[in-house]
Order: sequence, then structure tokens, then C-alpha cells
Amino acid sequence: MVENKIKSSISLIRHLLEPSSIAVIGASREPGKVGYSIVKNLLDGGFKGKIYPINPTAPEILGLPCYKNVKEIPENVDTALISIPARFVIDAIKDCGEKGVPVVTIISAGFAEIGEKELQKNLVETAHKYGVRIVGPNTFGVYRPSKGMSATFCVPYEYAGGLALTCQSGGVGMGILGYARSRRVGLSALIGFGNKCDVNEIDVLEYFAQDEQTKAIALHAESIIDGRRFIDVASRVTKIKPIVLLKAGRTSYGFKAASSHTAAIGGLDQIVDAAVKKAGVIRAKGLEEFFELGRALAMLPKPKGENVLIVTGAGGLGVLLADACEEQGIKLMDIPKDLEEKFRKYIPPFGSFKNPIDITGASPPETYKDCIDLAIRDERVHGVIVGYWHTLITSPMDFAKVVIEVVKDARKDGIEKPIVVSLSGDVEVEEAAKLLEDNCILAYPYAPEKAVTAIASVFRWAKYAGLIG
Amino acid sequence: MVENKIKSSISLIRHLLEPSSIAVIGASREPGKVGYSIVKNLLDGGFKGKIYPINPTAPEILGLPCYKNVKEIPENVDTALISIPARFVIDAIKDCGEKGVPVVTIISAGFAEIGEKELQKNLVETAHKYGVRIVGPNTFGVYRPSKGMSATFCVPYEYAGGLALTCQSGGVGMGILGYARSRRVGLSALIGFGNKCDVNEIDVLEYFAQDEQTKAIALHAESIIDGRRFIDVASRVTKIKPIVLLKAGRTSYGFKAASSHTAAIGGLDQIVDAAVKKAGVIRAKGLEEFFELGRALAMLPKPKGENVLIVTGAGGLGVLLADACEEQGIKLMDIPKDLEEKFRKYIPPFGSFKNPIDITGASPPETYKDCIDLAIRDERVHGVIVGYWHTLITSPMDFAKVVIEVVKDARKDGIEKPIVVSLSGDVEVEEAAKLLEDNCILAYPYAPEKAVTAIASVFRWAKYAGLIG
Repeated sequence: MVENKIKSSISLIRHLLEPSSIAVIGASREPGKVGYSIVKNLLDGGFKGKIYPINPTAPEILGLPCYKNVKEIPENVDTALISIPARFVIDAIKDCGEKGVPVVTIISAGFAEIGEKELQKNLVETAHKYGVRIVGPNTFGVYRPSKGMSATFCVPYEYAGGLALTCQSGGVGMGILGYARSRRVGLSALIGFGNKCDVNEIDVLEYFAQDEQTKAIALHAESIIDGRRFIDVASRVTKIKPIVLLKAGRTSYGFKAASSHTAAIGGLDQIVDAAVKKAGVIRAKGLEEFFELGRALAMLPKPKGENVLIVTGAGGLGVLLADACEEQGIKLMDIPKDLEEKFRKYIPPFGSFKNPIDITGASPPETYKDCIDLAIRDERVHGVIVGYWHTLITSPMDFAKVVIEVVKDARKDGIEKPIVVSLSGDVEVEEAAKLLEDNCILAYPYAPEKAVTAIASVFRWAKYAGLIG
Repeated sequence: MVENKIKSSISLIRHLLEPSSIAVIGASREPGKVGYSIVKNLLDGGFKGKIYPINPTAPEILGLPCYKNVKEIPENVDTALISIPARFVIDAIKDCGEKGVPVVTIISAGFAEIGEKELQKNLVETAHKYGVRIVGPNTFGVYRPSKGMSATFCVPYEYAGGLALTCQSGGVGMGILGYARSRRVGLSALIGFGNKCDVNEIDVLEYFAQDEQTKAIALHAESIIDGRRFIDVASRVTKIKPIVLLKAGRTSYGFKAASSHTAAIGGLDQIVDAAVKKAGVIRAKGLEEFFELGRALAMLPKPKGENVLIVTGAGGLGVLLADACEEQGIKLMDIPKDLEEKFRKYIPPFGSFKNPIDITGASPPETYKDCIDLAIRDERVHGVIVGYWHTLITSPMDFAKVVIEVVKDARKDGIEKPIVVSLSGDVEVEEAAKLLEDNCILAYPYAPEKAVTAIASVFRWAKYAGLIG
């Protein structure tokens, strides 16, 4: 009866995130129903594999022929989405096991989250007996934008990119999607673990470590099921790719709330903190930092050393950037004499030639250009923070254009180093920041500390991974 | 020769922020010139007082008759803006003294910031000899939106409201304006101190304390000139209105940068920190927190006790909110039995009736409405944090509408308590947040920790001011 064995972690997640075929158990013809939205999202997203709607009565759904049972499908099925009433889910899992489906995502609610702990326990036991692994239950689903796969009843998501995200809450997951869309963050995957009865963040880490699309991994968790194993796997993965963790329920208020939310059993936060740090995992303090660090780590190139240089058009902004650098453990390089001489050619004498280099508010776009170019092309400089001040002499858009030009030219010459831009000025700086980000340059209007936190994360990770001293 | 005496702090700032007449020394007919922009901004902003352009050759500027010298003006002059080359400024100050102008804002650069420390020293000495106080030099100017006064060569600002801001950097000042406009923050005043050679943040505190428009005060400073006096004055003012301080140059990197920027002499940061805390001043960690705390403190009503209640539609969001509450020192109340029973009438049994109250993602707008109403109207609850989860059942806009309705009804009944909203969902939550803020309800998309930081600040201040236990 049980033909297939529990798959190894990487191969299992490959079935989940790179399926050639998906069965939708509980597919529906009725718009508004969850089982309809799932099929529609898969079609609308342009999923290239096969989609098999399973419905006992409908002959077809959205133009796709239906099957009465997953076992009737004549070909292999990589993964299934289940959206039927909770009490029927165990039978569906048995069918999936018999069909040889290695991993299923259970969208259906009605398990531990409403107190049905016994039902959920039976579910897991049955699944494992039948060689099936479970994502969920009570989850919004799974996204793999590069495959046009929005396997969810919620909104689809189309921007493919380097950030892999997982989360343990639908509320947080939808916030993640909104934020990602608003900031146009490219995702390699988004997995909602819901009640997290079986497959969890530990199981996906090794997959993401070897996944070419994924540049950084961000995990939201209310509980870490097996702390020892998490640390063991994470320690290895962080040598290859950065991991950001938002551990919710880390205070006693939060922990109490988490217990009643997902029946999570957390450890003492200090222990979590120490273990996580030892494993090289970067911990986020809140949801926004979680997003922003993940985004920065996915987009910034790896640094080759620890020397950071600030080039600013406003002294006051330079002070705030310098404060944030010290707080974030960034090393501001001492400017070598020869480099200082080069800066002096471009900057008025009342500027500053220490780090932060202050080109002054009297500078036209050319001065920004020349000085950023100097910083980027000097081999002793390993990362650059640019501070822009909105003046009549250099408009936000003119500034953005010269930065894009300088960075593009450097990239053409094979020069890739972390660079972030902090913009201070009237609302037009928001547009300029957008233009910069459209050109893959991280840019932060108004909040210099955000720019610094972003670039600091990649230096912190590089130190842990042994890339820099 | 010296007719007028140095004015007391409140009366001095009244001349600066509530002038009936302003002289613009260095007014110009040429668009693009600083002296032209100042006059134009005053006119465009709808300044109701008299504007006297001073120019030795022009008969009129933008339709206003010119005077050759401030001394020729037949009426009283409350304040003057100076925008002429640095070397002529001292003579202009003498003229202002002889005319009896008590306070002038020197826009002109070319003083300590380019190394001309001696010139700046002479400037101050002369001014004081002639009974004139100086704002600046090297500043963007002064705003008083309620009087239509944008006394600046930079962009005008029109939203009047409860937040008084000061800053010691043009770069930071322009960032403040952009952020304020982007978040539609109403300002009672914005003062740029520039080189801060004379009038400083201490001089404005007592004015803002008695100013009816001002609800909260936010100060950006690279240096505190007289620490003892600052603490003395601030201790008294914070009993009346909250003060937020962003002390830049607080790390050794930042301090070095500040020394070369405004020649600021800072103290050891730990000393600043301890003193400031003792005075009840709330310290911001970065520019964004500075803005956000100032905004929240200006908008939230005073709490009558310390009990806060979270009502959330997503358990996961509730956990993050609870974590942030503990970190921010907020007291989550224990729900009294009778109140719990009331909540049970509205919420599905698998919700949570501890604090955070979890109404679950299955809740329609009515449930949000009933539960928020319960929380707001219970006298034992002194502050409310609402967590919204974007679902098919309750859209962001439907949610926003019921919150607005509940809060408005409560306000009609004289119930005013701090309330903040955290929204998690797809990008439509941004629009819903805007609608909430248009109705004077603070709302934060994506970042639950921001909502909590905001409401926490008003409880922290209320404790210091002795309003709550």
C-alpha cells in the first residue's frame, strides 16, 4: 500500500516548488470558493505544468478536465493542494499516498487552530504512514513566481527574484505579500506553514541553499519545532546564504499570545538568541526590519572586505549615517592620503575629507558623480553609503541619474560592491528612490538609519560566512 | 544707540513665529535668487502680515514697494530675514538693532561652517550689543503654517497642525519637510537653527509649552549648547507637553562627523542619555522614529490610565503586537471576566479571549466593529491597538470604514483615548491606512511594531507627566 518513502529534504521541496503537475483536491466551479480561486490563480499566473482539478461531480473546471479522485490521474503528480472540509482530509491524504504524491499543501482549516488537536495528530500519523509530507494545514499556500506558480486561494504574486520567505501565520503572510508588492521585492518562493504540523522551516533550508534563484532566506516563526536541528542545519546554510529570522512570541506577552494562536512551545528567548547568533542567523526585531533585511541581503553583492565609505551632500545627514554605522558595527575606513587628495580635486575646501566625505550642499550632480565614482572604483573601499540632500543645484532625479550611470559603468567593468543610497529632501526624493531601485540600487528616502541597517546586514553575514576578516 | 533689550524667551519667539511684519534684507527681483524665493514663498503661502523687501536699487519686488534700508521702514518690524553676502551681514545686524528688530533669521552662509569662526563670533557679539537675537546663520529658515508663513528660500509648507519641529541641519530639515508632506503631518512650526550661533532649542521650549497650537515638540540637535539649562527647562516643559529628541553625533563616528559639520561639542552620550531621561524627554534612535514619535505624540489624546487592549483579526499579528508591547513597556490589561463574556458574544469560540483578543480571520466587518466598540467604551481600557488582517470576508476599506464609524461615535460621546491601527495585507491596506489617517486615526500598514512604538510613546510621556500612575 505504501509505495513511496519519505523523501529527502531537498528532493521533497523540489516536488513542492518545482512541480510538473499539481492536483487540486476540492477544486470548484463556483467563483468565490477557495477551490475555484486556487485553480484560477494557477491558470492566471501562467503555471507551465499540468493542473488536475479533483471534483467528484464536475466534468471540467475553468476549461480543465476534472478527475473524481487523485488516484484516477493517469500521470505522475508532484504535489497536491487540498481544500475540502477538515473531516475529509485524512481520506484524501490516503489517496495521495496511494497515488505516490510525496507532498501536499493543506489549505483547509479546522484543525489544531480551532482546538482539533487530535484530528491534526491523526492527520500527521496517517500521512507519514502513507509516505506523504504535509505543508499546513490552515495555510494560504505556496508561491514560486519564477514558475508562474501562485498555489493559493489568496492574491497571486508575480515578481520573481532572490528572496525566499516562509511564515507561520496567514496574517503575517498577507502582510509580507503586500509589503513585497509595495516595495517590488522579487521572491524566489513564499511558503505559508500555517499550523506547521509536519514540514517546517528546517526542511526547506537545504533546498534554498542549493536553489540558484535564492540569494537570501527569511523565516518568520512562532515556534522552532526542533531547536537543535534548526541550529545544526542553519549553521551550515548560513555559510552559503544569509538567513534572517523573525522569531515571534519572543517576549512573555508575545509568548502567551503565540501559545493561544498556534499552540507554539517556545524556548527562553535568550537561549534562542544565543543559539541563533552562533549559527550566523541574523535576527530581525520586527516585521519591517525582517522584510528590509531580507530584501537587502537578496539584492546586495557580497563584500570583499570591511571598509565602508560615506559620501554625503549634507553634513547633518552624514552625522546620522555615521551614528547608525557605529551602532550597526560597520567599519568606516580611514581615508588614505592619496584618496583624500583625489577627493580634494572635486570638493569645495570647506567640505569634509574625513569619512563621511562631505561634498557640501553647494555641489552640482557632477560632484556627486565624480566622488561616488572615486569611492566605487577604489579597491580599498568595500562598500559605499551615499547621502543625498535635495537642493536647488542638484534635483532628486538628476542625482538619481548620475548614481545609476556611475554604478552601471562600474558594473560593466566588473566592479560589484554593496552600495546603498539615503535621500533627504521633499517628496520628490521618493520618486528618485524608485528610479534607483528600478536600476537595482537600494535607496531609502527620509530614513538614513534604514540604509545603514540594510548594508550592515550583508557585512555581518559576510563576516560569519568567512568571506571577510 | 541700543534701544531695545534682549527679549525674554517667550516674547522673543513670538516675534519670530507670530510676526505682524517681516523685513527681507537682500530681497531680489531675479527668479532663482535666494532673496527672490524668500519673498515669493511669503506671498505664495498667504502670509497675512506686512512684507518689507529691502534692496538698495529696486523700487519694488513682486509688487511690494522696496526700502533701501531696514531703518527706513516707517512701522515696527517684528523680525527680519537676511540673505546677503556674509561680509555685509554685520552691518545689516547693526541696522536691525537700530530699527529695534528683536530677532533676525540669517539665511546667508559663509560663517563657521566654512571655517569663518571669527566672523561668526563678531556677528554674535555685535548682535547682542545691538539687542538683536539671531537664528542661524546658514539656515533654510522658519515655518509657521497656521500664519501662512514659509520664511525660507526652500520649499513652502502648508499643513498646519500640532507638531513643533526644530533642527540643526539643512539636509535633515529638508528630509523633515518631505517626510511631513508624505505622511501629511500638521506642523505648528519648523525652525532651522543652522550654525546655531545664538538662539537655540532651549530658547523655544517655553514658547512651545504655552503655544496652543503645539501639542508635541521634536528637536533634532547635533550639540546641546548648555546641557544644564536644557535639562532644567525641558524638565518643566515635559510636564506640560511631550518632547522628542534626536541627538545626532551620539556615537564616536557620529561625534567626529558632527565636529567637522557644525563644530559641535557634544558630551558623553551616556551622560546625555541619563540627563535627558531624567527630564522626561523621549529619545528617538533615528530620523524615522523621530518623525513618527513626534507625529504620534502630537495626534494621540492623553491617556487616563495604563491599561492597553489589543483587538486583532490575525493571531500571528497579535503575537507580533504583543512582543512589541512588552518591549515598549506597554501594560496589556488582564481582561476582566465580565468584559470577556461580552467579547464571547461576538467572537467564534476558537478565537482568543485573552489579551490580545483574537476575533479570527473568519470575522466580518461587523465583528471588528462590535469588538473595537467594546474596547473603546470600557472605562477600564485606556488605550486600544487594532490589528487588521486582509481577508476576502473583510476588505481593507470596509475595515477602515467601520473603525472610523466606531471612533467617531465614541468621540461624539466624549470618549477620547489613544488608538492605533496596524494593517496586514496586500497593497490595498495602504489606501485604507490613508483613509484612517484622513480621519485622525493613526494607521500603520505592514509594520505592527511601528503602531506599538507610536502608542507607547504617549503612555511613557503620560507617566512622566504624572497623568497616570
